[in-house]
Amino acid sequence: MSAAPRPAAGPAPRIGIFDSGVGGLTVQRAILAALPGADTLYLGDTARVPYGTKSAETVTQYSLRNARFLLEAGIDLLVVACNTASAVALPALRDALPVPVLGVVEPGARAAAAATRGGRIGVIGTPGTVASGAYQAALRAARPGAEVVAQACPLFVPLAEEGWTDPADEVVRGVARRYLAPLREAGVDTLVLGCTHYPLLKAAIAAELPGVALVDSAEVVAAEVAGRLGAAGAAAGGQGVHRFFVTDAPARFLAVAGRFLGRAVEAAEHVDV
Amino acid sequence: MSAAPRPAAGPAPRIGIFDSGVGGLTVQRAILAALPGADTLYLGDTARVPYGTKSAETVTQYSLRNARFLLEAGIDLLVVACNTASAVALPALRDALPVPVLGVVEPGARAAAAATRGGRIGVIGTPGTVASGAYQAALRAARPGAEVVAQACPLFVPLAEEGWTDPADEVVRGVARRYLAPLREAGVDTLVLGCTHYPLLKAAIAAELPGVALVDSAEVVAAEVAGRLGAAGAAAGGQGVHRFFVTDAPARFLAVAGRFLGRAVEAAEHVDV
Repeated sequence: MSAAPRPAAGPAPRIGIFDSGVGGLTVQRAILAALPGADTLYLGDTARVPYGTKSAETVTQYSLRNARFLLEAGIDLLVVACNTASAVALPALRDALPVPVLGVVEPGARAAAAATRGGRIGVIGTPGTVASGAYQAALRAARPGAEVVAQACPLFVPLAEEGWTDPADEVVRGVARRYLAPLREAGVDTLVLGCTHYPLLKAAIAAELPGVALVDSAEVVAAEVAGRLGAAGAAAGGQGVHRFFVTDAPARFLAVAGRFLGRAVEAAEHVDV
Repeated sequence: MSAAPRPAAGPAPRIGIFDSGVGGLTVQRAILAALPGADTLYLGDTARVPYGTKSAETVTQYSLRNARFLLEAGIDLLVVACNTASAVALPALRDALPVPVLGVVEPGARAAAAATRGGRIGVIGTPGTVASGAYQAALRAARPGAEVVAQACPLFVPLAEEGWTDPADEVVRGVARRYLAPLREAGVDTLVLGCTHYPLLKAAIAAELPGVALVDSAEVVAAEVAGRLGAAGAAAGGQGVHRFFVTDAPARFLAVAGRFLGRAVEAAEHVDV
């Protein structure tokens, strides 16, 4: 009996990922769990982080520069691993790029719409993401009649970057309680973590909202990337080659990247985009 | 009896001030208290805020762009109202500009050296300011033999911008206690507020460090500006003309500017620098 022919392993697909900083590594982590053989190019715009407090025009301009850099480096698909950029810049990116562009907002909204029992859905994010209304619109499109409560949580990002994430920590608990009180009072049954830093605070958020389903867009996006790349992604059997680029000096990025990616990041290249 | 001749009121001096964002308005506030008739041009680099987590090279590049913009708009003197930029970019700015350039680090250090009784001086600031070592060096130069304890307080800026500054607030108290514990344990008798956002947290900081002299660089810099402009500054008898420029959309700047400047800011112009 002869072995069935294996599909020829073509070159591994190259996935471009950008974020304003280090947070998008939680999305890359989920993508690598789904597609361990994929090659990735990650760009963290650390010279201009954060995007969440900036205007839609400025974030769109930066997003286009990031995307063009990754496109010139050669990618088959772009993941916008930044909620703020996904919320405001996706149409401009899709117009400008000849490869598929996936954001994190729509997949997160669809997953929340599937998870909710009663149709009361909360979303937390940066001021920019919340002000854009993108999650609110995507949730209402995915689940007509949904009641959506949105809350900006500007202190969550610096808490995650400080490594202050323990739910027993009085500061962490105090900040989480204050931001999440309106969601608790509204009786949401599902909450979208609308910022790539927030998965690090998942335990503290869950402690304030017992029984609420927490939706982490990263996992949904990873499944969607795997679906798009299909056979090419599955056939890539290697370890994958991963390159990291940052727009500020790499030291600070390297100091915290491992905590977000869940594996060591040994080098990042400084680029101007 | 004829009136003594008044010195002719020449044109009011024009003071350029830049910061990474809104914090430098606490410096402008002190300058206007000292020189009410001066004209000011304020540039907040809100598209690239914050500087405090970025590398010295990136901060220097942004500072030079900001300074050139103000120079072209016509200024007699430049105040770098950002501790991070003062800590890392002052030599480059002084080389590049044909007008006097004042930072906030050296005046703050001199004031602390004058205020300390026992020579144990603390300084708090952004990670960038603390990592630069600029305050530590300036303090040791101003007071040879001084024992200097430096502490980065990354959550203080978002606390001030959220308006969470009440010393009775449990989150404010918890964050202040954690950051200031090493300074309390070291027994500092004087503390430099090495970030322009921190004066808004002065009461919370004082509550954790009773009996410690708090040095706000803004007031020292204002006195130095008044000294440099001398007669021209004193003779300007009008109300002063104040223009505000920002590199991101003005809405967010305008929403918080009044709290930092201590008077209404009605308009800001969006510029690319």
